[in-house]
Amino acid sequence: MASTIRIIGIDPGLRRTGWGLVEAAGNALRFVAAGTVRSDASAALAVRLRQLHDGLTEVMRALEPDEAAVEQTFVNRDATATLKLGQARGVAMLVPALSGLSVAEYAPNAVKKTVIGVGHGDKKQIHMMVKVLMPKATFDSEDAADALAIAICHAHHRQSVPARLAAAYAGARA
Amino acid sequence: MASTIRIIGIDPGLRRTGWGLVEAAGNALRFVAAGTVRSDASAALAVRLRQLHDGLTEVMRALEPDEAAVEQTFVNRDATATLKLGQARGVAMLVPALSGLSVAEYAPNAVKKTVIGVGHGDKKQIHMMVKVLMPKATFDSEDAADALAIAICHAHHRQSVPARLAAAYAGARA
Repeated sequence: MASTIRIIGIDPGLRRTGWGLVEAAGNALRFVAAGTVRSDASAALAVRLRQLHDGLTEVMRALEPDEAAVEQTFVNRDATATLKLGQARGVAMLVPALSGLSVAEYAPNAVKKTVIGVGHGDKKQIHMMVKVLMPKATFDSEDAADALAIAICHAHHRQSVPARLAAAYAGARA
Repeated sequence: MASTIRIIGIDPGLRRTGWGLVEAAGNALRFVAAGTVRSDASAALAVRLRQLHDGLTEVMRALEPDEAAVEQTFVNRDATATLKLGQARGVAMLVPALSGLSVAEYAPNAVKKTVIGVGHGDKKQIHMMVKVLMPKATFDSEDAADALAIAICHAHHRQSVPARLAAAYAGARA
């Protein structure tokens, strides 16, 4: 029997950070939970970063994922927006690291390629395929759906060659 | 007697984050300590962010500042550098917020104006004036010196009008 790994995907943003947790056992994927951590746009920046930290920390404690994955940020031309996103992303990567988890990063087109089969496509296609791959999945925001797509991407890419060999050996012994 | 406030200034960077702690009592400034938290450039991003978090958390615990200040980041045209800096800055602002401190932000020219008297000037002038204002100050990096300048800036700007009035009333009663 393949061991079960709990993966949290995170889609960072200062206003809204989406998260999605899936269980992967071999090639099987199971939806566990997804949601959105919001920060109060009228609060000071440090307070907002703490709100993201506290919300994500609560998710980590409640759901105890084994591994984390974050999308590599699309660096756009608006430097102010890039800086804001960077600050939120720093916190989003820090929280799982504080729990001792490794945090994998995937380029947006890698996420798309895994979930919809090609390296391009719009958000609607991604969200539809998340529902096809995990019919029980529910999400309260686009960011939560994106976070699930990132978790699915990591479930497909996480197995290193040694891990695959180990699984093959385990199969040969069974 | 004016109450003493311990102020930590932070100059964030992914490779090196400078910090400097001063004590302000009325118009008097006293150097307490300054230093640099470094991250391992060969480590994964999440690990580096944790190294910054752990280093700054240790400083907070050891020196127990009352207030924090961070320079507003100069948003440059290199989006990748801006994103990196943003991630480090997110962690640098989060750590004092996790200790319940307010985190003030100052534009670079406000820091210069406070420390060297005009809104422009090079780093050497700032570092020289930090030494003039606090002859006992020592720092192991330019980032630590910049962090002290940010702390000095906050010491000069932190008093709100009500606080000043309260001090005046206290003086009238004395």
